[in-house]
Amino acid sequence: MILIGERINAGFKDIANAIRTKDPTAVEKWAVAQAEAGATYLDVNIGAASRDPADMAWLVETVQKAVPTKISVDSTKIEAIEAGLDAIDGRGVLVNSTTADPGKLEKIIPLAVKHEAMLLGLAMDERGSPQNVERRVENGAMVFMAATEAGIPPERIVLDPILMPIKFMQEQVPNVLEAIEQYTHLSDPPPHISVGLSNIGSKTAERGRIVRTFLVMAMARGLDAAILDVCDEETIAAVATAELMLNQEIYSDSYIRAFRIKAGGSA
Amino acid sequence: MILIGERINAGFKDIANAIRTKDPTAVEKWAVAQAEAGATYLDVNIGAASRDPADMAWLVETVQKAVPTKISVDSTKIEAIEAGLDAIDGRGVLVNSTTADPGKLEKIIPLAVKHEAMLLGLAMDERGSPQNVERRVENGAMVFMAATEAGIPPERIVLDPILMPIKFMQEQVPNVLEAIEQYTHLSDPPPHISVGLSNIGSKTAERGRIVRTFLVMAMARGLDAAILDVCDEETIAAVATAELMLNQEIYSDSYIRAFRIKAGGSA
Repeated sequence: MILIGERINAGFKDIANAIRTKDPTAVEKWAVAQAEAGATYLDVNIGAASRDPADMAWLVETVQKAVPTKISVDSTKIEAIEAGLDAIDGRGVLVNSTTADPGKLEKIIPLAVKHEAMLLGLAMDERGSPQNVERRVENGAMVFMAATEAGIPPERIVLDPILMPIKFMQEQVPNVLEAIEQYTHLSDPPPHISVGLSNIGSKTAERGRIVRTFLVMAMARGLDAAILDVCDEETIAAVATAELMLNQEIYSDSYIRAFRIKAGGSA
Repeated sequence: MILIGERINAGFKDIANAIRTKDPTAVEKWAVAQAEAGATYLDVNIGAASRDPADMAWLVETVQKAVPTKISVDSTKIEAIEAGLDAIDGRGVLVNSTTADPGKLEKIIPLAVKHEAMLLGLAMDERGSPQNVERRVENGAMVFMAATEAGIPPERIVLDPILMPIKFMQEQVPNVLEAIEQYTHLSDPPPHISVGLSNIGSKTAERGRIVRTFLVMAMARGLDAAILDVCDEETIAAVATAELMLNQEIYSDSYIRAFRIKAGGSA
């Protein structure tokens, strides 16, 4: 499972303040905490707090000084992605994200090629978010084809079918599960498949239970990546248990501890 | 979800004692507790404690006096199943179980037809338990075809792919998930699909977590029934949450309480 830590995002007040004041303390704290918790990538997002691509470069550099973990450069702005990629010190990097919009694909894909990056493609297009299985599959296939034609192999492509809040768009949740399974048939080996996990629990009373139940159900259908709160111990235990069910981890009575050690270097 | 309460089974000492002494107290207690917790069927099993079919009749009658819940008559012995079915007072009943062994099918299927019962078929045959996906699918299809040829419609057939303890047969767990999905393609509408859920957690240190994670992952692949501990509140919450994800229950902040009221009449 590819675990992308969500916490270094200017949507959180401490990160927005860090970017504004260039005080690295909160960024370093979350870089270390998420790396120890088992993050494969640390997502880095300057959000609406900044329009300055140099802020993305600062955020990437600050994280790189704190931990050796790979980085997910996350922005809707192409200039911010470019600045983030230029700041990468040679470690692995994920471009987060393109959509299926042709105008976006033609700008983002060359960046992923140039930096030998993983590329995450959202199943959105010029018309916005998908409201059914078909649009999710069409948009995912569009990203997949454009990326492979540019020479990016399936194992460097990550498709995201767009998970929505169950409280407001419940009928979309089974559509996401179905799209995940259909993505697994795009190629052999298939692309990776990810969701922005926290979205589903937005404004719900049983947030943790809803997030974790969706996560393991999606893993049963082929999900193998997620942008999530890696510092939530119950979520990591859910991932470890689901990997056990899929025979991806060997059973031992202390399999959760073994998973944490392997993922993060600490238990 | 069809929830089959596992607790009235002579494998438990209090039920074995009740059968031996004909003291109905423990049987009544578990009948009421499981019915209130949301059981669709109460499994009734005289186990190895008795060779006397009259004991099955007594157990069925004792449960029927306590609650109006439907009954799953569970035995490997044909005479015990027959005695249980003859004791049913007209309420719904499930024959638990046949295997794909032709000698067994030809005796059990006519009983299910005669009593207009649901029929649960285990994906086992004369050679024993299945060790791969193919044998599970072959045996399930064998039961399905024999039952439908005898006039039992798909919605009265329940297939069980044979869940095994993850601690000892981990490689079989993904095979069970795959067999579940393949059963959903047998017909339209598909047969019901069930497992003996508690088996997977046998001798594990994280029993509850393992049982519930498998349950919701299997529901993501098409499982819609289980023989389980319905009195475990976390298990029922997991079922309610998985049904939410599949859009089978409508979201509300108190969806777990709503599920319990609907299933068991109490919250």
